[in-house]
Amino acid sequence: MILSEIALFLGCGEISDTTKIHGMNTLRDAVEGEISFLSDSKYEKELSDTKASAVILPAAKAHLLPSGVIALISDEPYMSVALLSKQFSKPIQSSTVEPIIGEGSKVYPTAHIENGVKIGKNCTIMSGVYVGAEAVIGDDVVLYPNVTIYRDCVIGNRVMVHAGSVIGSDGFGYAHTKTGEHVKLYQNGNVVLEDDVEIGANTTIDCAVFGSTLIKRGSKIDNLVQIGHNCVVGEFSIMVSQSGLAGSTTLGRNVVMGGQSAAAGHLSIAPFTTLAARSGVTKSIIQKGVYSGFPLMEHKLWLKMQAKLAKILES
Amino acid sequence: MILSEIALFLGCGEISDTTKIHGMNTLRDAVEGEISFLSDSKYEKELSDTKASAVILPAAKAHLLPSGVIALISDEPYMSVALLSKQFSKPIQSSTVEPIIGEGSKVYPTAHIENGVKIGKNCTIMSGVYVGAEAVIGDDVVLYPNVTIYRDCVIGNRVMVHAGSVIGSDGFGYAHTKTGEHVKLYQNGNVVLEDDVEIGANTTIDCAVFGSTLIKRGSKIDNLVQIGHNCVVGEFSIMVSQSGLAGSTTLGRNVVMGGQSAAAGHLSIAPFTTLAARSGVTKSIIQKGVYSGFPLMEHKLWLKMQAKLAKILES
Amino acid sequence: MILSEIALFLGCGEISDTTKIHGMNTLRDAVEGEISFLSDSKYEKELSDTKASAVILPAAKAHLLPSGVIALISDEPYMSVALLSKQFSKPIQSSTVEPIIGEGSKVYPTAHIENGVKIGKNCTIMSGVYVGAEAVIGDDVVLYPNVTIYRDCVIGNRVMVHAGSVIGSDGFGYAHTKTGEHVKLYQNGNVVLEDDVEIGANTTIDCAVFGSTLIKRGSKIDNLVQIGHNCVVGEFSIMVSQSGLAGSTTLGRNVVMGGQSAAAGHLSIAPFTTLAARSGVTKSIIQKGVYSGFPLMEHKLWLKMQAKLAKILES
Repeated sequence: MILSEIALFLGCGEISDTTKIHGMNTLRDAVEGEISFLSDSKYEKELSDTKASAVILPAAKAHLLPSGVIALISDEPYMSVALLSKQFSKPIQSSTVEPIIGEGSKVYPTAHIENGVKIGKNCTIMSGVYVGAEAVIGDDVVLYPNVTIYRDCVIGNRVMVHAGSVIGSDGFGYAHTKTGEHVKLYQNGNVVLEDDVEIGANTTIDCAVFGSTLIKRGSKIDNLVQIGHNCVVGEFSIMVSQSGLAGSTTLGRNVVMGGQSAAAGHLSIAPFTTLAARSGVTKSIIQKGVYSGFPLMEHKLWLKMQAKLAKILES
Repeated sequence: MILSEIALFLGCGEISDTTKIHGMNTLRDAVEGEISFLSDSKYEKELSDTKASAVILPAAKAHLLPSGVIALISDEPYMSVALLSKQFSKPIQSSTVEPIIGEGSKVYPTAHIENGVKIGKNCTIMSGVYVGAEAVIGDDVVLYPNVTIYRDCVIGNRVMVHAGSVIGSDGFGYAHTKTGEHVKLYQNGNVVLEDDVEIGANTTIDCAVFGSTLIKRGSKIDNLVQIGHNCVVGEFSIMVSQSGLAGSTTLGRNVVMGGQSAAAGHLSIAPFTTLAARSGVTKSIIQKGVYSGFPLMEHKLWLKMQAKLAKILES
Repeated sequence: MILSEIALFLGCGEISDTTKIHGMNTLRDAVEGEISFLSDSKYEKELSDTKASAVILPAAKAHLLPSGVIALISDEPYMSVALLSKQFSKPIQSSTVEPIIGEGSKVYPTAHIENGVKIGKNCTIMSGVYVGAEAVIGDDVVLYPNVTIYRDCVIGNRVMVHAGSVIGSDGFGYAHTKTGEHVKLYQNGNVVLEDDVEIGANTTIDCAVFGSTLIKRGSKIDNLVQIGHNCVVGEFSIMVSQSGLAGSTTLGRNVVMGGQSAAAGHLSIAPFTTLAARSGVTKSIIQKGVYSGFPLMEHKLWLKMQAKLAKILES
């Protein structure tokens, strides 16, 4: 799409610029030929450095753009982004290049490998597995039955994904109209599983809106775990069954999340932190330690709290 | 089955009536030719208006039936219903009519579409998908890999179901013998997903015992969510990952359920209610608002409670 | 592998013994030709009775072995076991015997049945199902679409497994290096589902490290439930949706676990115990009863606690 068409499509007024726009991205990551947006004022300071060719933003912020970056004025930038995201969403199939399957790799006959996929050496791709367009899979990978890998995902070496898990499903993102309808923000990023990651059964890891949801090397994720879009799970972290991460949360290395624990979105959790089973994190954790409860507190305080409550019960 | 056979099968005593019974249903929804039951006295007032041809119920309630409706006397009506439900359960395959696939729709070769299915236009039915007998799918639907749609389900237009989700699995219903065994209540209803519904990955929505589990238009359901049999999710509602609804609960329109929140069964939740992450609902919510905690309370009270508890901890 | 090679592989020093070792097992269950280990001193008393041919253990415990049992000395026995477990892990395919399918059983064309499998009579094995090597399936079993049964699992008669569930995925077990990497303990056991068990949709049941994860007859497990390795679920128990059991926990018969409830690992829960929705068990339950909350307490105490807290809120 060219910029003038985008402006027209979004109702942002007439613009004569005919720059060809090939994608959307955040202010920080956008490159020339991409369009970005400002929908949350906390990112305002990134306007001046953006490399985007154009930015969707409220009129009052347009003066903050570097010269040469086109402003597309919108009262509801997030809604504009959602509407536009569909135009830039990637098709399910996009390549005519037959998949490349490395030496020694075995693909079961009912697995479906889209065009444009590269699979390394000595992999086992079991029955019912789906590998989406342009996905790249390393060496010595085992994808157990009925695993789904969405398009563009990148899987490192020696990764195991147990049966039924879904890697790269759409993140849960919508803009909301004034009358309460939800407009889908198409998720154009991917998931990267680094080397030696193991994923349990029926776990779900959403792709990023833009960029990557990243599970760093050596991390181990149990069954029925949810990892939202744009999360980063640090090296050698452990997430026990039925735990969950909302979108854009970052775990440092060697974080342990107990069973049924969870963290809200846009948080950062210090390396070597342990979160007890059932704990719920709603603020970033700066100081490593052992934490419990919901609201979250240091585990030793949680024990003290339980003792106090036991006393109240006896009173 | 004819009524006299049913009476014999259930040990309800001899009945000479040979009316042909073609199905089971609730007192309210039963029509002529169906059998109903009274197992919970709160539905007693529905006896007088039932259109069922026969009703399984305790002897003491038989006099409440309208004239012409046959009483099948049982000391344990719910057990009788469970035993009988198997006789009326629908087979996995029941049609010889080849599936109808609309113009522009693409069905991957490893998808399995049962006979009697109708699929609309411009759908994408990806690898490993199963669509059960007599299911009806609208236009512009995307079923991602390894989705399972059980028989009789109805999927609206522009619905997306992400990988691994299960629509229409059996609700969790059993009658219990005095010695502790569980007798399955076969689930003969379906699931209806209205237009513009989006379902995340590895989510499960159970079919109704009778009638439909209903997800109304524009609702968005995240990954790993559980929705029990006979629930109704109102228009434009949102259920975040790992939340759950027990059976027969109704959400009004634009309800938001946070991550890992849940509601018990047979409740009603007011439109425009927001339930915070981890909240647990055990009573119906009449007044819209923001609620938190388990037991549930208004969010502002929950915050006050946390402040009080923090003080206790310091004391 | 012969013992001298194992000793060399683990760096346990030189051993001349050439006994052929064909597997690994616990001290209690090991038979001649198997190697066992002591990594937790609470099992020390089982050393004297072990039938293992060799035991990996710290030097200080070697004198507790019966004569004739070879000691393999390790400072980190659990790490040694993890490293060795890979050598004894079973391949995905191990048989050249074509699967045996009983009379009246129907296998959908996209199901994948490995060699060495035995399926009984009148079963329905639906599309996308995977049945791993050497698995044994009884009569009248229904495996709904996209179910995965890992190798060696044993499924009783009249079992139903709903769509997307995974039976026999690897338990979540790792040894940890001093620098924080995780070394996988390969899981060589299986899952046994006894007669009349019903499993909901997208539930996960992990195989045992050694031996079996066991779901006893007549138990009913709902959707999205997690059952860890080496658990035992007693006869006629019920686990409601989104509940979870960590590894090696045993439920007595007729235990009921409410929605989103959970139990930590290595616990024992008395028969006929009811655990309310959301309850969290961290200690064994000796006395049957109704329990709630996290930390867990008798349900009537939990109600009293809520009343006390309500008063604090008003104060």
